[in-house]
Amino acid sequence: MRTSIATVCLSGTLEEKMRAAASAGFDGIEVFEPDLVVSPSSPEQLRELAAELGLSLDMYQPFRDGVEVAPETFPDSLRRLRAKCELMNRLGTTVLLVCSNVATGVLDDDQAIAEQLRTAGDVADEYGIDLAYEALAWGAHVNDWRHAHRIVELADHPRVGTCLDSFHIFSRGDTVAGVEKCDPDKIFFVQLADAPLLQQDVLSWSRHHRVFPGEGDFDLVDLLGRLHECGYAGPVSLEIFNDSFRQADVYRTAVDGLRSLRWLEDQTADAVRDAGGEPEREPLVLTDLPAPQTPDDWDFVELRTRELGRVTRLLHQLGFSLAGHHRSKDSVQAWTQGPVRIVVSEDPGATVQPTRLAALGFQVADPDLAAYRAERLLARAVDRAQQPDETVLHGVLAPDGTELFFGPHGNHGVPPWLGEFGADQDDAASGALITGVDHVNLAQPWQHYDEAVLFLTSLLNLHPTSSQEVAGPSGLVRSQVMRSEGNTVRIPLNVAPMAAEQGAFTGAAYPEHVALACSDVVAVARRARRRGLAFLPVPRNYYEDLVARFDLDPEFVAELESHGLLYDRDEHGEFLHFYTATLGEVFVEVVERRGGYEGFGAPNAPVRLAAQYREFGG
Amino acid sequence: MRTSIATVCLSGTLEEKMRAAASAGFDGIEVFEPDLVVSPSSPEQLRELAAELGLSLDMYQPFRDGVEVAPETFPDSLRRLRAKCELMNRLGTTVLLVCSNVATGVLDDDQAIAEQLRTAGDVADEYGIDLAYEALAWGAHVNDWRHAHRIVELADHPRVGTCLDSFHIFSRGDTVAGVEKCDPDKIFFVQLADAPLLQQDVLSWSRHHRVFPGEGDFDLVDLLGRLHECGYAGPVSLEIFNDSFRQADVYRTAVDGLRSLRWLEDQTADAVRDAGGEPEREPLVLTDLPAPQTPDDWDFVELRTRELGRVTRLLHQLGFSLAGHHRSKDSVQAWTQGPVRIVVSEDPGATVQPTRLAALGFQVADPDLAAYRAERLLARAVDRAQQPDETVLHGVLAPDGTELFFGPHGNHGVPPWLGEFGADQDDAASGALITGVDHVNLAQPWQHYDEAVLFLTSLLNLHPTSSQEVAGPSGLVRSQVMRSEGNTVRIPLNVAPMAAEQGAFTGAAYPEHVALACSDVVAVARRARRRGLAFLPVPRNYYEDLVARFDLDPEFVAELESHGLLYDRDEHGEFLHFYTATLGEVFVEVVERRGGYEGFGAPNAPVRLAAQYREFGG
Repeated sequence: MRTSIATVCLSGTLEEKMRAAASAGFDGIEVFEPDLVVSPSSPEQLRELAAELGLSLDMYQPFRDGVEVAPETFPDSLRRLRAKCELMNRLGTTVLLVCSNVATGVLDDDQAIAEQLRTAGDVADEYGIDLAYEALAWGAHVNDWRHAHRIVELADHPRVGTCLDSFHIFSRGDTVAGVEKCDPDKIFFVQLADAPLLQQDVLSWSRHHRVFPGEGDFDLVDLLGRLHECGYAGPVSLEIFNDSFRQADVYRTAVDGLRSLRWLEDQTADAVRDAGGEPEREPLVLTDLPAPQTPDDWDFVELRTRELGRVTRLLHQLGFSLAGHHRSKDSVQAWTQGPVRIVVSEDPGATVQPTRLAALGFQVADPDLAAYRAERLLARAVDRAQQPDETVLHGVLAPDGTELFFGPHGNHGVPPWLGEFGADQDDAASGALITGVDHVNLAQPWQHYDEAVLFLTSLLNLHPTSSQEVAGPSGLVRSQVMRSEGNTVRIPLNVAPMAAEQGAFTGAAYPEHVALACSDVVAVARRARRRGLAFLPVPRNYYEDLVARFDLDPEFVAELESHGLLYDRDEHGEFLHFYTATLGEVFVEVVERRGGYEGFGAPNAPVRLAAQYREFGG
Repeated sequence: MRTSIATVCLSGTLEEKMRAAASAGFDGIEVFEPDLVVSPSSPEQLRELAAELGLSLDMYQPFRDGVEVAPETFPDSLRRLRAKCELMNRLGTTVLLVCSNVATGVLDDDQAIAEQLRTAGDVADEYGIDLAYEALAWGAHVNDWRHAHRIVELADHPRVGTCLDSFHIFSRGDTVAGVEKCDPDKIFFVQLADAPLLQQDVLSWSRHHRVFPGEGDFDLVDLLGRLHECGYAGPVSLEIFNDSFRQADVYRTAVDGLRSLRWLEDQTADAVRDAGGEPEREPLVLTDLPAPQTPDDWDFVELRTRELGRVTRLLHQLGFSLAGHHRSKDSVQAWTQGPVRIVVSEDPGATVQPTRLAALGFQVADPDLAAYRAERLLARAVDRAQQPDETVLHGVLAPDGTELFFGPHGNHGVPPWLGEFGADQDDAASGALITGVDHVNLAQPWQHYDEAVLFLTSLLNLHPTSSQEVAGPSGLVRSQVMRSEGNTVRIPLNVAPMAAEQGAFTGAAYPEHVALACSDVVAVARRARRRGLAFLPVPRNYYEDLVARFDLDPEFVAELESHGLLYDRDEHGEFLHFYTATLGEVFVEVVERRGGYEGFGAPNAPVRLAAQYREFGG
C-alpha cells in the first residue's frame, strides 16, 4: 500500500513536515497549499528536498470553489486553475484536489457541472495534471461521494476522476457500499481520516476532531476492503485536521500516522481473508505483520524508586513477600503474592518523583512475534542489560513513557525470569490474599492520548470502551478503559486536566495506580491496617451518602467505614475497594468484585481525587 | 440583588470554594452535593464556616430522578428525600433543587406528577424545606420551563415552587416570555448561565461550555428584566459547568462571576429604564454603577523594556520622535508621532522577556467615574507613583496582566500628562506619517479568555465580534476582536495554543502587537527601510499566490514585494500592511486601509506566524 500524509496533519514548517514524514517512512505527502504559501523555499527547492528525502508529492490541495460556478465566473476559475497547474509543474506534482463548491456554487445541474469539470480537465491536460473531484460533506450542491462520482462519469475526461475522503462520507452517516464496483481508474485519490462520533456541526467536527485510523469510530476497514476489491492501487493518504496534532512534536505525529496505516492495512487484510478473499491478489493490502499477541495475563508490574524502604513497606503491608534480588542487578528486587509479581528497582538518581510506575509486563504466547509486530508498528524498543544466560524480555516504550514487556507464559504461570531472583516456585503459594492484578491505571498527557489508544490497540490488541469524565477539585479527568478480550488485562487511561494554574502536568497531582484483586478485601484491609498502612482517608459524609443512595444497612456501612472501604454496585454485582496513600506518583488500590460487577468504582473516583488533592496540598 | 454561586462553578475543596465566594463578595452559595460528599467537614462544620464567612447557603442540589417515577418506586424517592432533608437541616439550607426526571421517568401525566410533587412537598414540610422544581433541557417528559411551572401550579403546595435556569431555557431555543406574569411566590430560585451558541448535543454543551453572564450569547437581560417585572426578589445564582473554571484559580473565578452579575444587573436596570420602567421599584436590579465610559480614543501605549536602545531605534525607524523624559521618573520616556503617544519605561529587572507591552491608556469623558465603575466591577487598581502636582491616571489590571488606564480628553487631544515630559504641544504636529493607533493585539492565556471578554465589555464597553481561527506552525490561534462603538478602539484578543511540546505558554512565540494606522504605508516602509528597520520577512511564494488569488497586476505585486508589504481586500476596500521583527514579546504592524476595508488582514496571519516561528527558532 502506498502511504501518504497531508502536510496539514503535522506541526512545524513545510520542510520540517517533509523531513518528519520521510523519517517515519511514508512514501509520499499531499502538499497543503497554505503550507507552501508561507514557506521561504521555492517550489523548485521543495521538489528537490522531496527527491532528496525519497518522498513523492502525491497531491496538491485544495482547489476551492472552482467548479459549479456561474458561467461568467468560470473563466476566473480557469485562470486560477492555470496558476495552480503552473505551480504544480514547478513542484512536480500531478494530482490536484478539486473540492465540491461550498461558497460560490450556483449550478445544481449535474450535466452543467460535468461540462465545467471537462473544460477544467482540458486545461489541466495542457500541464499533464489530473483533477481529483471530492464531495465535501458540507458542499452546497454536491456533498455525497456517489453524486461526485456520477458527475465524474458524466464528465468522461481522462484527466478527471474522484477523490474519496472517509471523513466526508462517514460524517454524513453515509456508507461506502458500491466502492467495490467503481472503476479503479476513475478513483484518483483516497484520503483517510477517522473521528470519534460527536454530535456537533460537521464543519467544527471536521476541522478539530479528526484522528488517525484506529483512534476514532469510523469503519475504515470496510472502506479499504472495498477499495482493495475494486482494484484501487493508488496512494492511501491521511488527511487529519486535529488541534493536538497541530501542536505536537512532528516526528511523533508522523510515526503515529504511519502506525495507523500499517495497522489498518493489517486489519483489512484480515477482513479480506475472513470474507474468503485473497489479500495478496491486489497490491493494496499486502502486509507482512504477524498476528497480534493478545496478553493472556499480567507478567509483572515494575516500580522504580529512590525511596526503596517506603515501597517495600507498602508491599509488605499489602501482604507481599520478598522473592529475592536479581542475581546480576542487585538494585532490583521481586516481590510476590499469589500470582502477582511486583518488581522494584532502586533508582537513586530519580529526581522528578521519588517513586513511579516504570514498566508493565504481559504474558503472551509468542514474545518474539509480539516484539516483531511492535517493531513493524514503529514502536521504540527498550533494551535492558542482561547476562547471556538470562531471559530476554522484549520491551517497547508506550506513548506515555511506560515500558511494556512481552514475556512467555512460563511454567504453571511462573515466568522463567523469576528464577533469576533465586525464588522457588513454591514461595508464591502460601497465604496469599491477593489473587491477581485487577487493572493498572495509566495517566496520559492530553496531547498523546489518541496515540496511546492506537498504540495499545495495535500492539496489544486491547480495545477501548466508552470514555467517561470524573470531576476532581482541579478539573475534569477523562477516563477510558482499554481491555483485552476475556478481560484479563485492563488498563484504564486517565487524561488529567492541564492544571492551568499549577504549572505543567504533574504526575504527583494525578498519580497512576495498580489495582490488586482479592476475594476478601476486609481481610486485606485488616492485615494492612495492622501493619500500619496509610490508607487514603474517606470522609464520613461519603458513608452517609452511601446509605441514602443505595438504601444500605447502616451496620454494613459502619463496617465499610471502620475498614476505610469504598463501595459501588451495578446491576451485576458489588464492588468493595480501598486506596493507599500516594508514594511519589503511584498508589495501590485493592478491590473485591462480588458477583459480576463490571465497573471500576468510577462514582468513588471524586472521593479519591479530593483526598489526593488534600494530600498533595492542592 | 441577592447574588449566589453554585459550588460546582469553582475549583478546589468545598471549603476553598466557600472562602473564595465570600471573599469576592457573594451573598450566598448553592451547595452542590458531590462537593459535600467528598468533604471531610461535617454538615455542622460547613454551616459554621458559612456563618463565619457571612454566606447564606441558598440551595442544596440536585435531587435527581425523584419524581415522575413509577408508583412502586416513589416510596424509595421519599426515603431519599428524607435523607436529604435531614442533611439539609444539619447544614441549615432550606431550598432543595428537584430536577425533572431524566433516567427513571415513566409518568407522562401532569396530574400524576403534580401529585408526587405534592406528596414530596408534605415530606419536605416536616423539615421546613422548599422544593424548587426545574425542567432540565434533556428531561424525559418535562423539559420546558412553562411545563414545569404548570405542574407546580397543579401541585398547589406551599412547599413546591419553580426553579428557572437560563441554560435549560435558552439552550432549547426557547424564550422567557411569560416570566413577567408568573406569581413571584412560586419562583423559588433562579439559576443563571450564559453560553456561546454551539451546534452540539445539549448535554455536552451544558456540561462543558457554560460561561458567566456576558461571556456568551444568551439574552439574560431579558430574563432578569422579566423577573424584575414579576417581582421576584430571591437569589440570582450562577450555575456554570465549565472545564476551564474547574481548574482555574478559585479566587479569580469567583471575582469573574460576581463581576458578571453586577454587570448584568446594571444592563438590566438600563433596559428596564429604557422600556419606561423604574428599576428602583422592585429590589431585584437596584444598582449603583455609573454608566460606562466608552473610550473615545487611545491615550497611549506603554512598552516596558530592559533593552531601551532597541526599542527607541524601532520607534525612530517608524518615524517617532522623542517628546521628552518624565520630570520625576527618569526611566520613563514619551515618544510621539502625530496623535500617537508611546511611553517607554526602562526596566533593568525584566527577566522573562526583555520587552513587553505593559499598559494601554484610553481617553474617556470622565476618568474618575470610569475608575469608580471599574472598582465596583471588582477590577484590581494599579497604582503609579506620582508627585502631588502630576496628573492622576487611574489604572486597572486586565486579566492578562496588561494595565489599562483611564485618561481625560486633554487639550486638542493632547493629554495633560504629556506636559510632564516637557513636550510642547506643537512638537507632535510636523511630518507625521502615522495617523493613529489602528488596533492593539493582546495575547490571552486560554484559561482567562472568557474573563477577559467580560472585563473589556463591562469596564470599557467594548463589544466582541465573531471569532476566527488562524493556523500557525505550532497550532491554531483563536482570535476575536473587541471594539468600541464607532471603532476608535479595537483590541483583537488572541488565544495561542498551549504549546504542548514547548513548555508553558510563551509570550515570545506568540507576541503581542501594536498596529499603527497611516495613509501611505509605502512611505512609512520606505523611511523605515532607509533607517534600517528589520522587517518580518515575507516569502516569495506568498506574492505568487496573491497574484493567483486576487488576479492582481503583477507590477503592483512586485511593488508590494519590494517594500515587504502584505495585502488583503474585502468587498469594501483594500488593506496594505507590514510587520516588524519581534522585540521580546512585542512587535509593531503598520497598516493602511484603503476604502472601507473592515478586517485585520487575517488571511495574512499564517504568513506572519510562520515567519515568527522561524524567527523564534521554533
